[in-house]
Amino acid sequence: MSSNRQLRLHARPKGLLAPGDLQLAEAPLPSLADGQALARVKYLSMDPTMRVWMARDSYLPAVAIGEVMRGFGFAEVLESRHKDFKKGDKVVGLTGLQDYCVIDAADKRGSFQKIPPVPFLSDTAFLGVLGVNGITAYFGMMEIAKPQKGETLVVSAAAGATGSIAGQIGKIHGCRVVGIAGGPEKCKWITEDLGFDAAIDYKSPDWKEQLAAATPKGIDINFENVGGEIMHAVVSRMNLFGRVALCGFISGYVKEEPELVSLGIVIVKRLRVQGFLVIDYMNRYMEAATQLGKWKMFGKLKDRETIVEGLEKAPDAINMLFTGGNIGKLIVKV
Amino acid sequence: MSSNRQLRLHARPKGLLAPGDLQLAEAPLPSLADGQALARVKYLSMDPTMRVWMARDSYLPAVAIGEVMRGFGFAEVLESRHKDFKKGDKVVGLTGLQDYCVIDAADKRGSFQKIPPVPFLSDTAFLGVLGVNGITAYFGMMEIAKPQKGETLVVSAAAGATGSIAGQIGKIHGCRVVGIAGGPEKCKWITEDLGFDAAIDYKSPDWKEQLAAATPKGIDINFENVGGEIMHAVVSRMNLFGRVALCGFISGYVKEEPELVSLGIVIVKRLRVQGFLVIDYMNRYMEAATQLGKWKMFGKLKDRETIVEGLEKAPDAINMLFTGGNIGKLIVKV
Repeated sequence: MSSNRQLRLHARPKGLLAPGDLQLAEAPLPSLADGQALARVKYLSMDPTMRVWMARDSYLPAVAIGEVMRGFGFAEVLESRHKDFKKGDKVVGLTGLQDYCVIDAADKRGSFQKIPPVPFLSDTAFLGVLGVNGITAYFGMMEIAKPQKGETLVVSAAAGATGSIAGQIGKIHGCRVVGIAGGPEKCKWITEDLGFDAAIDYKSPDWKEQLAAATPKGIDINFENVGGEIMHAVVSRMNLFGRVALCGFISGYVKEEPELVSLGIVIVKRLRVQGFLVIDYMNRYMEAATQLGKWKMFGKLKDRETIVEGLEKAPDAINMLFTGGNIGKLIVKV
Repeated sequence: MSSNRQLRLHARPKGLLAPGDLQLAEAPLPSLADGQALARVKYLSMDPTMRVWMARDSYLPAVAIGEVMRGFGFAEVLESRHKDFKKGDKVVGLTGLQDYCVIDAADKRGSFQKIPPVPFLSDTAFLGVLGVNGITAYFGMMEIAKPQKGETLVVSAAAGATGSIAGQIGKIHGCRVVGIAGGPEKCKWITEDLGFDAAIDYKSPDWKEQLAAATPKGIDINFENVGGEIMHAVVSRMNLFGRVALCGFISGYVKEEPELVSLGIVIVKRLRVQGFLVIDYMNRYMEAATQLGKWKMFGKLKDRETIVEGLEKAPDAINMLFTGGNIGKLIVKV
């Protein structure tokens, strides 16, 4: 415990992360001032939005060149001069991609949350199903998509951490749920384990015909994580007064061109296309976490993790999000 | 009164209407069956959506080749065997582009509405400010855009029949209203006569800078009639939680390629982009017409008409909608 390994942003990526865009560096452990606590980072959440943070200003400013890469993680407090945290506390927050992080009372943006001990939940659940992904899926579905019994919901990136939960919330609300995912293993997981009504493998040459066959009554809700050609195919099948909950555009993050969608159909079908970000709902975290926790406890919500070992593997892990390498929540064990 | 001149669809237009896409023909006057009435068409409403009806199926089926061109008009009943109409009644409805039309009790789609005598309103007002345009602007603003006092509203095609009313409804609700229009005459009309706070002439080379200067607090509502580059410039300046009421895409109607818009900003700014069609609100016509009529009577709503004389000029008139030739409501006097 004499030094702190950190992944620092060296160059803004073009397309997928190239070797050296994030560089491993060693920094001395900080000495704590009053109002600060030192925590050991145990798990890092790998999220597509990290690629945006590396590239440009968005809803948060871009990470500056030379800065520790921003990231959400799970950590344990080692030492504290902060009134809200004591040694042994488990926390989640913007730890950054490093071995150790400082929790600072003065830093509002990087606010950390203490994790309560819940017997049926693993520590990593607070990065996934009860973390950013679960909360995103919950508010995206409940506040934006507003599923009604009997409606057809199509989720893209359906075997991902957010999509897999969004689809299950659709099932809980009585929707016919169709997931779009890449490859037979993911498709099998969402139908056989998660209870989706159908899965479309977008790597099949006839995936658009499969999508049509799986949505005989059209599509009422699109929970969209991908964008591009996949979103276009889904939106083309939408029913009158359908809703598109725009969660993300994985297909657009590693391309330079902006995400383009034809809007003519939005008028003809009177669609509501609405973007949302989980950060707007953070004051309602407990509402979502309580509901998600109940669903998980009663077996209505299942999750799965892909764990990559080693901080130094985080750049490859980020790329996995865009190449379809993970099933469920992707986590780096530091 | 021995024959009925009709404009029939001869070929689906590419780009603007070419001579002969609509062809003038003569048909005998129909003899009336029970449940039918014959009416003389006096005025025809020229609407951008007519170009869509000529080209392809949309929210209504395309006009068939050889069929009388679909169009909304004002007519007077000459002879009636229909229980709801008598000689002398003034009506609006889908008259078609012709001298005479038949009102048929069996035809639900082409349902005609009787016009009440209102002293301060001209007959043509029922094609514009109290017709499709007024109702479109009313529900687009009240149900989709939901203007709040102090917000900034930007309307494109602001000197058009719908945009000019949408902007004035924004003023009535206490918004800062900025209109985008082509040429100094239109810009002068919407600011000096209609009370818009600013007008942007998109034919000026520096119109984007003018738009930025006119919206110092960003844009909360976009009432969109144009699409393409103009919409892109407006959406780029939108504030968090802004609303885009998609009314139409004039810029896209005469092009073959679909209307493309970048959606990345819809997530980053948490925008709601919503399409709507006036046909969904027809059962609430009286609610809108009553309010619009009051506003007009008290001088809060002003309108203007461009009248083109002669049924045979209707094809040129339709093109004027896309080349910016009209100010306010464009009407053909048959």
